[in-house]
Order: sequence, then C-alpha cells, then structure tokens
Amino acid sequence: MIRAIMSGCNGKMGQVITGICKEDAEIEIVAGIDLYDGIKNDYPVFPNISVCDVAADVIIDFSNAKAVDDLLVYSVDKQIPVVLCTTGLSEEQLKKVDGASKKVAVLKSANMSLGINMLMELLKQAATILAPAGFDMEIVEKHHNQKLDAPSGTALALADSMNEALGNAYTYTYDRSKERKKREKTEIGISAVRGGSIVGEHEVIFAGLDEVIEFKHTAYSRSVFAKGAVQAAKFLSGKPAGFYDMGDVIKATIA
Amino acid sequence: MIRAIMSGCNGKMGQVITGICKEDAEIEIVAGIDLYDGIKNDYPVFPNISVCDVAADVIIDFSNAKAVDDLLVYSVDKQIPVVLCTTGLSEEQLKKVDGASKKVAVLKSANMSLGINMLMELLKQAATILAPAGFDMEIVEKHHNQKLDAPSGTALALADSMNEALGNAYTYTYDRSKERKKREKTEIGISAVRGGSIVGEHEVIFAGLDEVIEFKHTAYSRSVFAKGAVQAAKFLSGKPAGFYDMGDVIKATIA
Amino acid sequence: MIRAIMSGCNGKMGQVITGICKEDAEIEIVAGIDLYDGIKNDYPVFPNISVCDVAADVIIDFSNAKAVDDLLVYSVDKQIPVVLCTTGLSEEQLKKVDGASKKVAVLKSANMSLGINMLMELLKQAATILAPAGFDMEIVEKHHNQKLDAPSGTALALADSMNEALGNAYTYTYDRSKERKKREKTEIGISAVRGGSIVGEHEVIFAGLDEVIEFKHTAYSRSVFAKGAVQAAKFLSGKPAGFYDMGDVIKATIA
Amino acid sequence: MIRAIMSGCNGKMGQVITGICKEDAEIEIVAGIDLYDGIKNDYPVFPNISVCDVAADVIIDFSNAKAVDDLLVYSVDKQIPVVLCTTGLSEEQLKKVDGASKKVAVLKSANMSLGINMLMELLKQAATILAPAGFDMEIVEKHHNQKLDAPSGTALALADSMNEALGNAYTYTYDRSKERKKREKTEIGISAVRGGSIVGEHEVIFAGLDEVIEFKHTAYSRSVFAKGAVQAAKFLSGKPAGFYDMGDVIKATIA
Repeated sequence: MIRAIMSGCNGKMGQVITGICKEDAEIEIVAGIDLYDGIKNDYPVFPNISVCDVAADVIIDFSNAKAVDDLLVYSVDKQIPVVLCTTGLSEEQLKKVDGASKKVAVLKSANMSLGINMLMELLKQAATILAPAGFDMEIVEKHHNQKLDAPSGTALALADSMNEALGNAYTYTYDRSKERKKREKTEIGISAVRGGSIVGEHEVIFAGLDEVIEFKHTAYSRSVFAKGAVQAAKFLSGKPAGFYDMGDVIKATIA
Repeated sequence: MIRAIMSGCNGKMGQVITGICKEDAEIEIVAGIDLYDGIKNDYPVFPNISVCDVAADVIIDFSNAKAVDDLLVYSVDKQIPVVLCTTGLSEEQLKKVDGASKKVAVLKSANMSLGINMLMELLKQAATILAPAGFDMEIVEKHHNQKLDAPSGTALALADSMNEALGNAYTYTYDRSKERKKREKTEIGISAVRGGSIVGEHEVIFAGLDEVIEFKHTAYSRSVFAKGAVQAAKFLSGKPAGFYDMGDVIKATIA
Repeated sequence: MIRAIMSGCNGKMGQVITGICKEDAEIEIVAGIDLYDGIKNDYPVFPNISVCDVAADVIIDFSNAKAVDDLLVYSVDKQIPVVLCTTGLSEEQLKKVDGASKKVAVLKSANMSLGINMLMELLKQAATILAPAGFDMEIVEKHHNQKLDAPSGTALALADSMNEALGNAYTYTYDRSKERKKREKTEIGISAVRGGSIVGEHEVIFAGLDEVIEFKHTAYSRSVFAKGAVQAAKFLSGKPAGFYDMGDVIKATIA
Repeated sequence: MIRAIMSGCNGKMGQVITGICKEDAEIEIVAGIDLYDGIKNDYPVFPNISVCDVAADVIIDFSNAKAVDDLLVYSVDKQIPVVLCTTGLSEEQLKKVDGASKKVAVLKSANMSLGINMLMELLKQAATILAPAGFDMEIVEKHHNQKLDAPSGTALALADSMNEALGNAYTYTYDRSKERKKREKTEIGISAVRGGSIVGEHEVIFAGLDEVIEFKHTAYSRSVFAKGAVQAAKFLSGKPAGFYDMGDVIKATIA
C-alpha cells in the first residue's frame, strides 16, 4: 500500500482525491495538510507540512502557490517524491522546482488528465505526418464563464507539443478580426469559447484539402484531474530524483 | 416555366446555377450577363445587362459590385424582380438597393443557404428562451485558408439575429487573450477557425449550468448557395415591389 | 413562497432537488416522502404520502413506480398539482395518470431538461421546413455504460416530435447491418452509443444535398433534470386540472 | 517522372486522379484502361490491360472486380507494381492478390485517404493506453443515403485496428434496441448514420469516467481517396515484391 500525504486536503480537489483513494486498494492517504480545518477526515491534518511527522511514500499537492516553498523543502529533506499540481507558480518558484528535482522525484504537468496527456503524444505524431502534407492546425477550447485566462494552459500545451514536433516553426494566432488577410501556413490558430459551467473541452483540428481530422477531449468533472494525480502518485512512489510529467506515466502504462 | 436572367453567368456560382436550372422543370435561364465570354452556354450571353433584350421573370445576380448599379436600373426599368447575391456593396450602393426595392421586388441575404436561414429563425426563438434562463451564447465558424475576412458575414448575421431577439443588448467579443477577466453576461463570443478547403461551418453554442445546446450548419460545397438562390428566384418571380430575404422564402415554404 | 412536497426525497434526484430549492427564494420543500430514512433533511419525512399531513402547493415526484398509485390518490384528494418524473409506469398506471389529470394538474415529460424540451419545439419547425426540401433525419444518442434501455426515451421523444409534425409518415430504424440496401426516405435512423459515465447526449441530424444541420444537447450532470423539475413545479402551482408537459413550461417562459 | 497506367481511367475516380496527376510534377499517366471510350484524355486508352503496350512504373486501379484478374496477370508478367483500389473482390480473387504479391509489389487498403490511415495507427496506441484504464470504445460513421452496406468497410477497419492492438478480445455490436441490458466491457459498438450526400465521416469515441476522447475524420469529396492513391503510387514505384498498405506509405513519410 502506497502511503500519501495530501497537501491542500480540504480544498475541492483535495476532497475529490480523498474520495478516490478511499476506494483504491493500492494507495491510502496517511496525512493531510491544510490551514482550513473545518472538514473531518479519516487522517490527521496539519496546518503546515513542516510540522507533519507521518511517514509517507509520496506527496500529492493541490494547494496554493504560497504553500509550495515549504513543500519543496520538506520533499527534499524527507526524500519523498512529490506530484505538484498547484498552478500559478512564480518564475522564482519554478526555478526552485527545477532545483528540487535534482534531489528528489518531482512530477508536474500542464494538465493532469490521462486523456489530455495521451493526446499530446499522439498529436506530435499527427503533426509530423499531416503538416508536411499541407494540413493546417487549429485549436478550439471551451471553458466555463468564470475562467480568467484565455486560451487555457492546456490549449497552449497542446499547441506546444505540435510545434515542438515541427521544429518550433509556428506562431500562435488568437484573433483574426483585426486584419483582412489570408491565413499563413506557419500559424496555429487558438480560439477560446467561454460559457455556462463547461468543465473543459479541447479540440485540435487538422484541415487539409477536402479532408479534416479532429482530436477532441471533454472533461465532465474535475475528478478527471484527481484521477490523473492519483495515477501519477502511484507511478512516482519509489522513483529516483528527476523531473517527470504525465507523459512518463503514460509510457509506463504501455511498456 | 419561370424565365431567369443569370447575371455573372460565367463565374463559378453562375455556372453551378446554370447546371441546377438545367435539371429543374420549373425554371430556365433565358439569358446570361458576363464580360468574360470564354464559356459556351445554352443561352445568349450579353456583356452588360443594359443591352439584354430577352424577356424574363426574374434576375439572379452573382456578379461583382461594379455591375450592380446597371443591374438595379435595369431591374426597375423592366420591372423584373432581382435576387441579389453579390457581396461587398458600398454604403452608397446599399442605399440604391433600398431605393430600388420601393419600385421592384429585391431579395438579399447574408447567406443564401436554406439551412442557415432556417437556423436564423430558430436561433431567435432559442435565444428568447435560453438567455433569460442564464445561458451564454457563443459562435464558432470554420472556413478555408484563403478567406480574407473574419469572422464570416454569416457568423455576424447569426449573432445579429440572436441579438435582435434580445433587444440588441449584446456586444461581440473576438479575442479573449488580451485581458485576464471573467466573461460578461452581455457578450457573444465569435471565434474564427481557418484551415484547408473547409467550405463553411457555423456552430452556435448555448452554454448553461451543466447543459449545453449546439446548433451547427455544415456546407459541403458551394452548390448549397446556388440551390438557395434558385429557390429564392422561384419565390420572387411575380412578387410586388419590396425588400425580401431568405426568411421570407422559408416562411412561404411552411405556409 | 411555493410549498413543495418532495416524493422520493432521499434518492439521488430528491437530494439534488433539495439542494436546488435551498438556494431558491421562490420555492421551499416543506415535507419529504421516502421509505429510506438514513438521511437528515431540514423537513419532516414520511414513509408514505398517505400519512403526510403538511399543507403544500405542489408535489415533485422522483420516486419509483410502486409509489405512484398512492401519490395520484393523494394528489387528487388534496387537490395538489403533481410534477411526475418517475419513469417505468405500467399501462394501467398511465391510465390512472390520465384519469387524475381530469381532476388535478399533472405534468409529465419524457425528459425534464429545459434544453431538450425547447429542442423538441424547434425540431418540429425544422422538420416541417427541411423534410419537404429532401433532408434526411437521423438521431444519435450517447449514454453511460450502465443504461439498460436503447434507444433512450428522450431520443424516441425527439423522433416522435419530428414525426408528428410530418403526419406520422416515418418509421424508426435501429440497425442497418442486417440488410444491404439504400436508405428509405421515410425512415428516421436512431443510433445508441454506450460508454463510460456519459450523462446524456442527443444529436439530431438533418442531412441534405451538400448541407447538414445538427442540433445537439449535452447534459453534464443530473442536476439539469432537477432544475427542470423545480421550474415545472413553480409553473404548475396554482394551475387548474389538466395534463401538462415541459413544452407548456417553455411557452409560459416566452409569453 | 513516374509513369503510371490508370486502370478504370474513365470512371469518376479515374478522372479525378487524371486531374491530380496533371498538376503533379512527379507523376504522369502514360496510358489508361477502360471499356468505355466516351471521354477524351491526353493519354492512349486501351479496352483491356492485356493489350496495353506502354512502358510504365506503376498501375493505379479503380476499375471493377471483373477487370482485376487480367490486371494481376499483367502486373506480375510485366513486373509493374499495382495500387489496387477496386473493392468487392471475391474470396478467390483475394487469394490471387495474395499470390501476386509474392511476385510483384501490391498495395491494398480498406480506405485510401492519408487521414484515415494515420488515424488507424494512432488508434492502436490510444486503445493500448485507454482500454486498460477502463475506457469504452465506440464508432459512429455517417454516409450518404445511397450507400448499400452498413457499417462502412472503413469503420470495420478502424475497429479491427483497435481490436488487434488489444489481442482481438472484442466483439462488435450493431444494434442495442433488441435487448434490455448493460454494455459489455468487451464490445465495440458501431453505429451507421445515413443521409443526404455525406461523403464520409468516421468518429471513434473512447468514453471513460467523466472523460471522453474523440477522433474524427471527415471527407469533403472523393478527391481525398484519389490523392491517397497517387501518394501510394509514388511510394510503390520501384518497391520489391510484397504486400503493402497505406500504413507503409505513412511510415515512409515520417522516416
């Protein structure tokens, strides 16, 4: 049984992960970290990770940027691998993440869902085949009306994975209404739709001569990201120091 | 048998319409107008409509903005209704169209397909029901990589039809990447995808709480617009002076 | 404030509706009916509606077929309108529902979501315009892998609404793999996709010559049906005896 | 310049391929085979391949099953590789194809489009990752109302490619309306939609817990298959004896 510390255990995602681990025979949460203590859990909860004295094999982090500095120190000190799902880290913090990954296993991804990360791998191959055959690449993403940023980090990550496979020759276009001109071959258009409570939908379009190929991912609830984090934790437990992402989890699944 | 003059008979759309009328027992092309004379047709072709001396019941126009002034004069003089499909008219020309419609039947629409125009009627009803129930409205349109303008005139017409039904309280948003903020209730987002040889795809999205309704129109070839123009010509023949659009053709179909 | 009795209050849907009503200033649940008493609610819960002595303006029923007989008797006796969402009623029970609606207001619909019911109204109009123009009609529905019946009751209701608008001239086709033959003009094909935890997706396709129009409804959670039931309850409270459906709720919204 | 013989040159596909080769600097049609001689081509046309005396590097065949026997004899005798696109071959003929491929290069695929064949490769990988993670697989295909068979050969080929990647443990389900039961884990549902003039649309759905991934291919005209055949011909010219398919053409593109 893998023993996990849930950092941010009383947030939305922390609670969903708590629920998933309860029904999973391979992993159990042995301690939680959260400043808020209004929720009753089956495990002890500490206000800060530095005071946590429970032995564990892996940390799952869905807390907030402020808590990440202490988390990295703890992870390195105790030599416990960490699945880092908190977003909005500063440049300085990203450097600390990088530094920590030299000493302990750290896993970080733009999107934690199995489906999106698999799609990223397949899109590299599709781009390599279709772009030279004259296909144009476009992305449409849809999210709820409360989302602040556009396009989504996941849409950018999808574009990046295609762009990298093609030697980073492409630029991204977010608006075509300002200029009257034909599409350039070397652009990837990214459109952001906002409305209702849409959890997250990403569609990648390859449009050629009389032929269109679409790859689409739809998340119906946040539990998709929680499931991915749990899979990542199982994968990361026992791994040597290094920087990992969900692509590594998928490769391990196939092999 | 309805006798039609095909203005712009040797262009792409003129030739598609010629083909459709050949197989239609209710309408026949009795004369064509085109400066280019490199195509052999079954009917006489005149370089300018002012020299056309063939009796007719209706004119179908898919020519170019320059030819429209003479066309309107002819249509009023001879009292022949005109289906005006040429786009890119100047403000001044649009006024002339308006003036002509006081004296002869004129039909003009942003999009000539039966499907798009029916959708426009249904969207008014959908908007009236769903917007007060908290649904957000968004449009995604897709066209080939040679199209100069974005968003498409049809996408704007679809947005206008919803906006009008809701008291014109909405503004249109073409780009969300510049600002970090939540979606406003009173915006309609319009995204333009460009790629390959896509003829024309329009998707209207109503996104509510845990519920999304989509209306989608796909054109597989330009013949869709040609068919609509022929239907419009049949409808317009014999009609009194006035300004008509494809919505009138549809209403006549139901009644 | 409308006072509602929640029949089946401790089932999944009963609890979702309880949550919705808590945040709605116009309606409140004053009593619940459920044999299972393991959930703590803010209102008194009775094991059978016949022993419920709380005054109310409307009943919302998401219980089971067995409980419906008593429910109808109570509704007529007390003259309380009832929103009947329980499915799987026998022929005999459907007759009782019909009988009850002569004496009290009864509302029943194949699907309780606002979106699906609006779509049903629009599809009647679309079918009336597009079928005579040669368009073929097809439906694809998608649901989770635990669903027993196929196609869904909602898919059949959508097909029925188009068929009725066209004089019931159509038959429904569920399988094309057994015979090698062309599609008949007078069939509506209905396909059922099953997989994962899909809550419910319905797509109605009108396919013509080089033109396709699609209407699609996606439910992201069951709360969509709960919301519809609450809207129906508000509408039904105070209405005279008669048989109502969600179409009536929508018409009242527009008027 | 690759010299090609076009077998079935005066059929629809033969003429589309003729047009494509005219604008391609790498391949030219040097002779055609067709019983029908009513079309004027830039190359000599023979009624039967056995009397063709023009030297060539490759044969593209879009004729009919009856012509295939002579074609295979000729291809082996003259040692000219053949791209075999004719469908509806008998069991006996398929054996002859197999035999011929021992002596000359033969390429045959269920679908000639680049997009579909690339999808087939990606679907194998997706199935290998997603099926063990509990995702259900379903296919929906859409074609015009004149198509006789259902499901399409391409839909079956897509299902086969996933099934093979998973040890052929799956059965195919075409109809769920006859029985009231839950979906089996080891079935792949295949639905066939028919309507209008839809050229060909294939959608493969992986549905998991709160997450759906879709792969979709849309053909807008038959020229997609013609383009694929020309690509295949370029690839096959000069290849040693053996049986090839479009997957080999794609692999060569990437390498």
